[in-house]
Amino acid sequence: MALRLGRLGAGPCWRAVHGDYGQLRAWSRCGTSSRVCRLPGTASTQARRGLGQSPSAGGGSWLGTGLAAALAGLAGLAAAAFGHMQRAEMVPKSSGTRSPSPGRREEDEDELACRCRTFMTSPVTDLRELRKRPEEMKTKMELMIMEIQAQVCQALAQVDGVANFSVDRWERNEGGGGITCVLQDGRVFEKAGVNISVVHGNLPEEAASQMKSRGKALKRKDGKLPFTAMGISSVIHPKNPYVPTMHFNYRYFEIEEADGNKNWWFGGGCDLTPTYLNQEDAVHFHRTLKEACDQHGPDIYPKFKKWCDDYFYIVHRGERRGIGGIFFDDLNSPSKEEAFRFVKSCAEAVVPSYVPIVKKHCDDSFTPQDKLWQQLRRGRYVEFNLVYDRGTKFGLFTPGSRIESILMSLPLTARWEYMHSPPENSKEAEILEVLRHPKDWVH
Amino acid sequence: MALRLGRLGAGPCWRAVHGDYGQLRAWSRCGTSSRVCRLPGTASTQARRGLGQSPSAGGGSWLGTGLAAALAGLAGLAAAAFGHMQRAEMVPKSSGTRSPSPGRREEDEDELACRCRTFMTSPVTDLRELRKRPEEMKTKMELMIMEIQAQVCQALAQVDGVANFSVDRWERNEGGGGITCVLQDGRVFEKAGVNISVVHGNLPEEAASQMKSRGKALKRKDGKLPFTAMGISSVIHPKNPYVPTMHFNYRYFEIEEADGNKNWWFGGGCDLTPTYLNQEDAVHFHRTLKEACDQHGPDIYPKFKKWCDDYFYIVHRGERRGIGGIFFDDLNSPSKEEAFRFVKSCAEAVVPSYVPIVKKHCDDSFTPQDKLWQQLRRGRYVEFNLVYDRGTKFGLFTPGSRIESILMSLPLTARWEYMHSPPENSKEAEILEVLRHPKDWVH
Repeated sequence: MALRLGRLGAGPCWRAVHGDYGQLRAWSRCGTSSRVCRLPGTASTQARRGLGQSPSAGGGSWLGTGLAAALAGLAGLAAAAFGHMQRAEMVPKSSGTRSPSPGRREEDEDELACRCRTFMTSPVTDLRELRKRPEEMKTKMELMIMEIQAQVCQALAQVDGVANFSVDRWERNEGGGGITCVLQDGRVFEKAGVNISVVHGNLPEEAASQMKSRGKALKRKDGKLPFTAMGISSVIHPKNPYVPTMHFNYRYFEIEEADGNKNWWFGGGCDLTPTYLNQEDAVHFHRTLKEACDQHGPDIYPKFKKWCDDYFYIVHRGERRGIGGIFFDDLNSPSKEEAFRFVKSCAEAVVPSYVPIVKKHCDDSFTPQDKLWQQLRRGRYVEFNLVYDRGTKFGLFTPGSRIESILMSLPLTARWEYMHSPPENSKEAEILEVLRHPKDWVH
Repeated sequence: MALRLGRLGAGPCWRAVHGDYGQLRAWSRCGTSSRVCRLPGTASTQARRGLGQSPSAGGGSWLGTGLAAALAGLAGLAAAAFGHMQRAEMVPKSSGTRSPSPGRREEDEDELACRCRTFMTSPVTDLRELRKRPEEMKTKMELMIMEIQAQVCQALAQVDGVANFSVDRWERNEGGGGITCVLQDGRVFEKAGVNISVVHGNLPEEAASQMKSRGKALKRKDGKLPFTAMGISSVIHPKNPYVPTMHFNYRYFEIEEADGNKNWWFGGGCDLTPTYLNQEDAVHFHRTLKEACDQHGPDIYPKFKKWCDDYFYIVHRGERRGIGGIFFDDLNSPSKEEAFRFVKSCAEAVVPSYVPIVKKHCDDSFTPQDKLWQQLRRGRYVEFNLVYDRGTKFGLFTPGSRIESILMSLPLTARWEYMHSPPENSKEAEILEVLRHPKDWVH
């Protein structure tokens, strides 16, 4: 089966090739110059309406011209928001992140504006600012995470088929802001959040000392340490206990020291938290991430897989939060460009690593007992996130953070039973064993 | 109505005088020398069976001789456990904590053993050890918290009428242990835990540095800092959203420095977390605590009430966890004895401050909407406990801690909704207002 996902308006569309888990693994963009640009801020509705919710072999669903025209009627608003608005022109995948060349400025503006219209809403940073610095990593990263946010939300909304992503833009008084997309209490998903944040300012003392504890001795200028941090962060909690929870996060950090030296690094990862073990799913998930890593070097996956097992460790329980995936931090080699390409590969692997698993199990039958075990595992998820997760703690203790976006990672519901212990040889004991002794899934 | 609560065997019984909330406020012990000592470790069953679950005016229920005799038949076990076993002799309240006098050693042993038999199980410390140091604060405190544990469990089991307290003794490899009593999924209570711990050893470096950050510069001997810590800690989560959650904790700490100097202090408190505000209950709860404090000085309640509001602050939400109560730490004046008497008064106020509120509301009708709001508030409770609570964090990060006892404070179930915000002028908004701006309840 070949599945074709259509998007309203000028956004790219993804055509997936089929296979066991392969429907969504190989993405390629197809372009058309005749579509109407869609409006920023209306993506959630579009994602819901525009996606083929009953994909059929070889075909996709495209929005009727009626709705498209109605949205086009609001184009003035979009133009005001973006400063510039034209018809879309698709960027074929092969062109990569094209840089503007002399004499093509108008067209490049169009390309940027049009690319932005495929997002859930306009980027955090003003387009005029982004246009000024197309080659800077801050720009490339922000556009990449915006794209991934739209990709993930679109794929999940399609699977859910009922609930919608709400799209919240928020601003940070100290500088920057974010876009939080949340789907709550859907058919398939209990709670799915995909959050972008792009913040800048001066690094608070606590945050700087945390860097120091990680081996970064940073030279302050007049006590100040200008920084930019941006990232995409997502946690997906499905309803069915046979569909695992998934988390991913990709981030980029820049700090300018007193001597003008610019520190930069990437971090991130993607990991799976099943209620029950499904060997085949675990292998698929890890294999997809490994393929993304392997494009950039053979040692990457094993190293970051181990890092993931080590990081998502609930010390007081002696268990990992889930069956792992990849995790890395402080990545600043071999070059900024190559590190970015690696992060991009990983981020693009999110949907193909996870969505096929959701589709496979979202209609599995389950018992109240299965649901109870899921709720207990959700409790452990909360424990990890509130007690250990560096990102969550950094967020909670950083003034000006948007708490609702940070705690969007928590499940809708969770449970704690005193001294709960599953019987030997049960399927509950099976997953516990793996959480206690992580496995190698791909060799 | 005068309510008389009977206990199986040699334990004290409590006779409560009536009043609006007064049934359980004024406690007095009544003695009898003719009862059979009850067995340690069987308290949970006894609490269930022994308590008058249908209290009637002027009367109480006493266990039939059949069951008492059956338990007495197991007395050999108890004797083995305690080293010494005799019939009970009651200690009238007026005698306070009687100290042994020369020539009365046998009798005092009896008194101690018998007092212990009113507990949920035998104390953490071996009775022979306790007998060696009857005047030491460690002994007095351990016996007092054991007594409070039994009092609270008994009162709650009586109200619940269906579920039982499980009694778990646990040992800490590094020294000491504890007794965790948990009632789960009852008629009235979702989860009620009353935990004793009595631990000793050498203070871990992290714990010592935490003390230092609180202004205690402690002199180590050969890098070691011998300590004893003991306390009772309890969280009660009822099912009905109109019955508030209650927490209390009373603890005693001793550290011996290199020069032989003994640092000691008490800490603790008791606070209420309602799902919905009930003015009358809030006043009753605070007034009962105030009365306990006022016996020891007029400035205590206002100071510790404010400390409580400050401590149980969920910074990232800008809300208190509940409507407060009292909280204090590092209490080491005016004298060890007087500080102990104060702590004892507070601990004895737990049941009369809370249980009447439970009785008043446990059969209130409620809607699914009320239950949902309760679950969201439970989520905030989890946030406070895992992110801010010093006791929980100290426990989680201390090797050898018993995690199930520490996390017994978490509710059975909790919920997190993205961007939940109650409508203006709703009863949900009413309690939020109080959590954001604590009130003075007793003036």
